[in-house]
Amino acid sequence: MPEGLGCEGKRESDGTLAALWRLQRWYILLFSSFCPNRKFTRLPHLAGTQQNLRLAEQIRDEWLAFGLDSAELVWYDVLLSYPNRTHPNYISIVDQHGDEMFNSSLSEPVPEGYEHVTDIVPPYSAFSAQGRPQGDLVYVNYGRTEDFFKLEREMGINCTGKIVIARYGKIFRGNKVKNAVLAGAKGIILYSDPADYCAQGVEPYPAGWNLPGGGAQRGNVLNLNGAGDPLTPGYPAKEYTYRSKLKEGAGLPKIPVHPIGYHDAVHLLKNMGGASPPPDWRGALNVSYRIGPGFTDDFILNKVRMNIHTYNQVTRIYNVIGRIRGAREPDRCVILGGHRDAWVFGAIDPVSGAAVVHETVRAAGALRQRGWRPRRSLIFASWDAEEFGLQGSTEWAEENAIMLQERAVAYINADSAIEGMYTLRVDCTPSLHTLVYDITKLVRSKVTIQKRTVCISMCETKAEWVGLNCCSKLGSGSDFEAYFIRLGITSGRARYTKNRKTERYSSYPVYHSVYETFELVERFYDPSFQRLEAVGRVRAGLVFRLADALIIPLDCKEYARSLTQYANTIQQLALEHPEAIQRYGVTFEGLFSAVDNFTQAAADFHQRLDKLDTKDVLAVRMLNDQLMYLERAFIDPLGLPGRPFYRHVVFAPSSHNKYAGESFPGIYDALFDIENAADPDRAWDEVKRQISIATVTVNSAANTLHPVA
Amino acid sequence: MPEGLGCEGKRESDGTLAALWRLQRWYILLFSSFCPNRKFTRLPHLAGTQQNLRLAEQIRDEWLAFGLDSAELVWYDVLLSYPNRTHPNYISIVDQHGDEMFNSSLSEPVPEGYEHVTDIVPPYSAFSAQGRPQGDLVYVNYGRTEDFFKLEREMGINCTGKIVIARYGKIFRGNKVKNAVLAGAKGIILYSDPADYCAQGVEPYPAGWNLPGGGAQRGNVLNLNGAGDPLTPGYPAKEYTYRSKLKEGAGLPKIPVHPIGYHDAVHLLKNMGGASPPPDWRGALNVSYRIGPGFTDDFILNKVRMNIHTYNQVTRIYNVIGRIRGAREPDRCVILGGHRDAWVFGAIDPVSGAAVVHETVRAAGALRQRGWRPRRSLIFASWDAEEFGLQGSTEWAEENAIMLQERAVAYINADSAIEGMYTLRVDCTPSLHTLVYDITKLVRSKVTIQKRTVCISMCETKAEWVGLNCCSKLGSGSDFEAYFIRLGITSGRARYTKNRKTERYSSYPVYHSVYETFELVERFYDPSFQRLEAVGRVRAGLVFRLADALIIPLDCKEYARSLTQYANTIQQLALEHPEAIQRYGVTFEGLFSAVDNFTQAAADFHQRLDKLDTKDVLAVRMLNDQLMYLERAFIDPLGLPGRPFYRHVVFAPSSHNKYAGESFPGIYDALFDIENAADPDRAWDEVKRQISIATVTVNSAANTLHPVA
Repeated sequence: MPEGLGCEGKRESDGTLAALWRLQRWYILLFSSFCPNRKFTRLPHLAGTQQNLRLAEQIRDEWLAFGLDSAELVWYDVLLSYPNRTHPNYISIVDQHGDEMFNSSLSEPVPEGYEHVTDIVPPYSAFSAQGRPQGDLVYVNYGRTEDFFKLEREMGINCTGKIVIARYGKIFRGNKVKNAVLAGAKGIILYSDPADYCAQGVEPYPAGWNLPGGGAQRGNVLNLNGAGDPLTPGYPAKEYTYRSKLKEGAGLPKIPVHPIGYHDAVHLLKNMGGASPPPDWRGALNVSYRIGPGFTDDFILNKVRMNIHTYNQVTRIYNVIGRIRGAREPDRCVILGGHRDAWVFGAIDPVSGAAVVHETVRAAGALRQRGWRPRRSLIFASWDAEEFGLQGSTEWAEENAIMLQERAVAYINADSAIEGMYTLRVDCTPSLHTLVYDITKLVRSKVTIQKRTVCISMCETKAEWVGLNCCSKLGSGSDFEAYFIRLGITSGRARYTKNRKTERYSSYPVYHSVYETFELVERFYDPSFQRLEAVGRVRAGLVFRLADALIIPLDCKEYARSLTQYANTIQQLALEHPEAIQRYGVTFEGLFSAVDNFTQAAADFHQRLDKLDTKDVLAVRMLNDQLMYLERAFIDPLGLPGRPFYRHVVFAPSSHNKYAGESFPGIYDALFDIENAADPDRAWDEVKRQISIATVTVNSAANTLHPVA
Repeated sequence: MPEGLGCEGKRESDGTLAALWRLQRWYILLFSSFCPNRKFTRLPHLAGTQQNLRLAEQIRDEWLAFGLDSAELVWYDVLLSYPNRTHPNYISIVDQHGDEMFNSSLSEPVPEGYEHVTDIVPPYSAFSAQGRPQGDLVYVNYGRTEDFFKLEREMGINCTGKIVIARYGKIFRGNKVKNAVLAGAKGIILYSDPADYCAQGVEPYPAGWNLPGGGAQRGNVLNLNGAGDPLTPGYPAKEYTYRSKLKEGAGLPKIPVHPIGYHDAVHLLKNMGGASPPPDWRGALNVSYRIGPGFTDDFILNKVRMNIHTYNQVTRIYNVIGRIRGAREPDRCVILGGHRDAWVFGAIDPVSGAAVVHETVRAAGALRQRGWRPRRSLIFASWDAEEFGLQGSTEWAEENAIMLQERAVAYINADSAIEGMYTLRVDCTPSLHTLVYDITKLVRSKVTIQKRTVCISMCETKAEWVGLNCCSKLGSGSDFEAYFIRLGITSGRARYTKNRKTERYSSYPVYHSVYETFELVERFYDPSFQRLEAVGRVRAGLVFRLADALIIPLDCKEYARSLTQYANTIQQLALEHPEAIQRYGVTFEGLFSAVDNFTQAAADFHQRLDKLDTKDVLAVRMLNDQLMYLERAFIDPLGLPGRPFYRHVVFAPSSHNKYAGESFPGIYDALFDIENAADPDRAWDEVKRQISIATVTVNSAANTLHPVA
């Protein structure tokens, strides 16, 4: 097929027949089976292990066989963290003589059928400090900022020198650890409470998909703020790269951290001394645990001891990078990337996503072998060491930052495709709203729930679609971070999710446990693999359209609409302090005026786009450049305060929960807890400074949409 | 004339007849007279004054009349600094009762013909702190880093709490002030020594072009490191921009500073107590001054007192921005910019440059009115407040950073066109070497000196041209700084200069004095204005070719050659510490390997360029994008240590002299004075880190030259 395939038609986001036909062809090739999921989940694929390297090689070879122009391994030597094989990690209750009266489990019971598997890493907190701290235990609920505020300010409980125990859920575990360190704790235990990790009326795995009492959540406890490899922040971890000393490494916790399941947790929590926890702090573990130091009753003089021997080690990791060269604009690329490394079998995280990438590559490769090329280049990535702080994706972004800044049209992320069984969830930058809506309209999943197919079928209009928050903000916690938040590349992600209104448990119950098996997906989450197929079609559809449309299908007006909304939200937050606003002369006038400028510029831009002579090759390229660079315009090279790698002025991971996205994060952080600021003059000055940065940035972004020259 | 003018021909840097013809036409229109120089120098044009605003309006109106598509004033409210009109600044020698026995002059004798002119600002150091410090005087030679090292380490003289006196010359005055502050001085006096500001056998102005004894050098004493307006570093100083508190302003000196002429200086220097200055420290003031505190003889108990009332004030400044829209690629621009503000009449600085810009606009406007348009857009800028720290140009760069990053092909600077009468001097980025050489070959100046016309006529080959250092590195001290060092835009500057081998005085003698009159230029520097014309042709030729050539005429191979040279130089510097190199395992292997990668990539790139099908509009655009973005590839968003706005990894203003360019500045600074490092482990670690950053960056730049996708 000639290369011109992508070039006819004016605006393919209008849905011309030709474009639809090509997309259909792409879809037909997708998901002839979901064998990758089974194949990729037979063995553990922990980052830095031989098994994960073998998988990388296999994927590379298959991608080449599928028909990509190239596929290669790209390595980095990054800091990873593993438990010591001969000195396992555990938590003890010790008596007054220091003798261990109770020890937590050293591993999870292995599910049936996997008993023969070696190299299952036991639950641990990656990058935990080593140590054997011993002391009183304080229960800190979810360990959120507000939880510690409540402890310190309302309940008068000081965590200095204590070991704290927090339940998993609500926020990224690294933030819990950071809060514990700030509160002065000398260790933190993380546990999964049934209130957060068991759905009502569901059995524990294998009978159902709930977390068994012996299961525990692995995970890194870094506070990297986008730095990638902790020893080479800002630069790719190659052989020629300087590595900082471990003690100066980015984001490493200074205290021991360890995760346990609820069967173990109950022993620690029962009979704790101190005050009763407030009602909303009580998990489902129906024991009479209390808040505060020490143990009552039998254990009156007992303490908790953590025994942590986890070590850090510079280890080689491998991304697989595959490419199809674009027919007309090879110097423009669309990236589909997702991670390959898993804590154990990873049937949901990441293989449900990696399978989508694999199938997409297969479809694209098959088209390629029949002569097709997309207008722009495609890059497919199988990232390594995502679980250790998004390292594979961040290092590759660091090595290719200049190229990406200049040439990347969009990055679509492909982590876990399912975290629930209810409906589609999309997080993306506002300029993708319309494309996502258009694509989901085309995806007719065979999965029916309450007579609906995918979420989108509820929404008759785009306004409704966005209004119902079917599209939310991007936070972090997956590999799009460096591309979106650091480099300002248009980004989005999609997955099947739970019903947030009725299903109140965190994430999905067996998240990061040994129970994320192929059977879990096949029996419970997606027996016919139709949810995976629906998610795959959305992801692949986005990639296809972004790479192949003559005009990059981004909607600047949606960005304008979102900016208006965010400006209103942040102003409302400031208006909660009417007196201070008055006293310090804080005004959002400039910001609103900038948003107006942007709104007008966006409207004018789309008018010009509608009138574009699509035969004029340079005119098309110039408008496409404006579209491609729109997201880049929100990058402030100076970064957010104290977070130099979070450079997007409109979106950043929340400072209090890496998983959540915050809009106008600079202003938000400046306003946070401002009523308790030690120096209010300085604090409100910072608010004004941040409003000014947002204003400058939005004005600047508006300028990029003006007619060129 | 149709818009296609710039499009035929393959590589115009090959010198096709059509391109030559167009350039000739452009040249013929240039410099029909040099009236702008006379017109612009009748009155002072200090930044922030009504007179300078009137001049801006006049220039805007003339540019519009010349035929530009647009010309507008663009304002910023920036921090400027002026002497107090009712409390003049001066230096006193005071006796033991505190009575003033000698006071320095309050102003310079005004040259004949200008007696009626009001608003001549007296010599002062802009942004000096206010104060009346009194104390012993220490002579610190040029006030360079090495001078203070010598004082402290060899001569055992401590400047803490002293007033120091430094002679002007060798380095940027701001660096002298910074060094004095670091040495603990409580004030610094700057004076012009005849050794540095008088040429042998030349009379003082008006009989000749030497500095009269009553003349003194104005100038700012900031250490901005590229921040622009001290109160809004990183952001444009608009009405909606947050301004930091004055005490937190960027680069403001903490001590009083004042400049004096040599008639005044002799009173301070004679009969100083202390040790004799080393022979190489003695200026031409033939008095028995000594180094060290106090005064001997008659003045045994006398002290020096500075009386400084200069104040800082946020003031509106105005750039003039003119444009010609490009015919084929309006979203690519070439900028010709130079400043308009002058300390007084500014016949050399800046009007000899501003006249070149004005004439270039006239020529371009005339062509434009006859139907011509360049392939790419042209932007002409008349910057304000350059003398106050490059503020007009930096603020505009800050406001348009995103646009410039994406679309700027090159920035050509047009400050003073003459600083001597001998030969052409060009400072530019290496990729411009070849174009500069080609252009200067075309410029046949009528000025003959020792049977040569302009410098280039000495050089028969490009290798000779570069080898003879006719092209040097860019430093700073003029408006290209933000464009080159912060944003990574291909930049260059050209001017007529002195014979550095035989003319040893600094700058030109009457630099920044009231004696920079039209008559100075007309009588001495360029009686027939042929030097100005030659410089104008080089500048305009660069702009024309960069804007109009089908293929952007940049030479990546020259960049490769220069990188090799810089890598060798910096390695040599490190090899001065063979033991430490060994002990700490410092190696430049990675850097040389990166330079090799770059060299190979550059060679391959130019091979592809030679084979390019110039009819393929997109292919041409893609290669041009690689050329345009080459300089950008050397930008590290994290900036140099402590200098976040100096982000070019290959070039930065020296940390010890803003005027001079340093190659691989991160490594250079890490190596500087390393033998005296307090913590050698840490210091050598930093050397390794900087080598690694350079390596990463050069590799990354090499990648941008590879075939796309």
